[in-house]
Amino acid sequence: MSELYLYERELVIPPEEYVRVHHTLAREFVYEIFAAAGLRDDDAHIVADVLVTADLMGISSHGIQRVRRYVDGLLRCCVNPRPDIRVVRDCGATALIDADNGLGHIAGVKAMEIAVEKAERYGVSLVLVKNSHHYGIAGYYSLKAVEKELIGISTTNSEKLVAYVNTVTKSLGTNPIAVGIPRKTPPPILFDSATAVIPVGKIEIYSKLGKTVPEGWVIDSEGRMLSGEASKVLSEIRSGKASILPLGGLGEEFGGHKGSGLAFIVDIISGVLSGAAWGLHVRYTVDTAPANVGHAFAAIDIDAFMSKEEFYQRIESYISEIKSLKKHPSADRIWIPGEKAWYTMMTRLKVGIPVHVKLCDELNSIAGNMGLGRRLC
Amino acid sequence: MSELYLYERELVIPPEEYVRVHHTLAREFVYEIFAAAGLRDDDAHIVADVLVTADLMGISSHGIQRVRRYVDGLLRCCVNPRPDIRVVRDCGATALIDADNGLGHIAGVKAMEIAVEKAERYGVSLVLVKNSHHYGIAGYYSLKAVEKELIGISTTNSEKLVAYVNTVTKSLGTNPIAVGIPRKTPPPILFDSATAVIPVGKIEIYSKLGKTVPEGWVIDSEGRMLSGEASKVLSEIRSGKASILPLGGLGEEFGGHKGSGLAFIVDIISGVLSGAAWGLHVRYTVDTAPANVGHAFAAIDIDAFMSKEEFYQRIESYISEIKSLKKHPSADRIWIPGEKAWYTMMTRLKVGIPVHVKLCDELNSIAGNMGLGRRLC
Repeated sequence: MSELYLYERELVIPPEEYVRVHHTLAREFVYEIFAAAGLRDDDAHIVADVLVTADLMGISSHGIQRVRRYVDGLLRCCVNPRPDIRVVRDCGATALIDADNGLGHIAGVKAMEIAVEKAERYGVSLVLVKNSHHYGIAGYYSLKAVEKELIGISTTNSEKLVAYVNTVTKSLGTNPIAVGIPRKTPPPILFDSATAVIPVGKIEIYSKLGKTVPEGWVIDSEGRMLSGEASKVLSEIRSGKASILPLGGLGEEFGGHKGSGLAFIVDIISGVLSGAAWGLHVRYTVDTAPANVGHAFAAIDIDAFMSKEEFYQRIESYISEIKSLKKHPSADRIWIPGEKAWYTMMTRLKVGIPVHVKLCDELNSIAGNMGLGRRLC
Repeated sequence: MSELYLYERELVIPPEEYVRVHHTLAREFVYEIFAAAGLRDDDAHIVADVLVTADLMGISSHGIQRVRRYVDGLLRCCVNPRPDIRVVRDCGATALIDADNGLGHIAGVKAMEIAVEKAERYGVSLVLVKNSHHYGIAGYYSLKAVEKELIGISTTNSEKLVAYVNTVTKSLGTNPIAVGIPRKTPPPILFDSATAVIPVGKIEIYSKLGKTVPEGWVIDSEGRMLSGEASKVLSEIRSGKASILPLGGLGEEFGGHKGSGLAFIVDIISGVLSGAAWGLHVRYTVDTAPANVGHAFAAIDIDAFMSKEEFYQRIESYISEIKSLKKHPSADRIWIPGEKAWYTMMTRLKVGIPVHVKLCDELNSIAGNMGLGRRLC
């Protein structure tokens, strides 16, 4: 790991436009904003931790840059700051939770706690959540199960951004699947992936960096490939004139029906079966009507199948076999899912998370408007 | 559905080289071969049903053309014809099954039966199988749960064919994920997909049809795209000089790390956690050592979350919304996962399954060698 000590998966360009902020300071600052926005103390800590963890892991699209969106949702009264999160059904290894229109992070952490308890008792569990909002990075919840040495699975639906295969308009969310697998020592395996060819956050970052979008990520409303200047592509997506393609791309030749099918299945389990919205009906955080996002959380107890010791040995063998494969000439390294995020986190725990000066100003201004004396940077 | 009455997803070209065989005749014929190969009566019926169902659904790569492979495995004594399939661990909502080196279909049907019983009791279940062999189409088992009005999930690992992202040699199976969702009336939703960009069966079919493989499916051992004559590409894969790419293709730009990650996760749950082989160690049916394939079966009881009536209504709304989307100009139709297979089955139940004359000769000869008087066609 030493060689990766200062590894960061994300480019921070140009570096002079970024300030490094200590994660503890960022967590406290974001906590204070959410507490001021009306959240209960514990809940404000949860939201702050999910957001700062995303920044630590190098997924800044889901990090503290989302504070504005969530605060807007809370202050415009579309998001319930003090949700009464209730288990509305409990059937042995399953539960259904009503998130009471609160932020998804709060219900998410509670749901995964229940999933872990149930899996420890029954071997496997499934907890669904309805009436929720955006919950940040799916992998955060999987890692909560991994901390207890269980396998953790988390999926969610989200507002429409992706074109169902053989169609040309946004109808599916980027509906991610996250699976965390514990290891004897870190980093744990963490697969956390949108079922779209890319998450929209990638285009947001390309836009900020002034990069161009390659052909194969986005189509326009006539089904033509849309590429070029990322900021332009992003505004076409936002205005409803363009859609992200599913994993596998356009049509069926390279598996667009597979990515689209995975997004559809995630939506059926997270949204349809939970009683939440689905597809076209999932709303954005700042809409006037509740977003009614649906999530799913599952946990698997390794001890139900074999001893943890044996499992860990088998996983280490598998990983070392993969690491020993012949590398593709164009690849920098053979990565195990979750390594990039983990090594980025190890780096940023030491050197701080990079915050763009404009984002810093925005967050300082949000805090100021809420009467907080504190500044992030 | 009337417009689709004679729909078949697979091309049967040239038609004069195919004979149409009634599914009942095919099932009986295949049953007799497996009974003669030493399987118990019930087990021979199961294997025959899985294979003929694949042909009915238009997945002929997994249909009766696999009889030779399985019979070879049985007669060379690598596959156990009379496995003692045992539940070796049972922990509430989970179970672990030892397939005793028998054909995967037999353990698969039993495992999904247990998964259904457990889900009806606990809401969700997970049953893993070790020490097994190839089990045919993953979707068959999901549909077994769907018949009982549960959601059924099935995954399996398989012999290496796919290059892990950023590597150039075969190290992962095509490790499919199948999810079946019941509907009020057929067809059920059935997502059944290799986590590779294509299943190897697609190249086998292209090879038979004399078609060419496009760039983006296969790489050679130096990491270069391999395209052209399918029969040549297939023999390079078989000889270990080429690999299928994961869903998402080469590298990470279009999500090759996502397809590769999904295959890895399927392998960890089906193979590593079950106690079966994984990755490089999963063997082919006719190898002298046991294949030690691992499978996973999960079921979800809809009633644990909402009434079936409400679920079915929600699913119908979702499907009709998808069907109403604006179609891509190059697409023939907007398909729901499983429709192609179902409509092909409806057609072939009436007109028979197409069997190539060479396959017919092969199967007749297998039957003859086993002392059976019967001919398939």
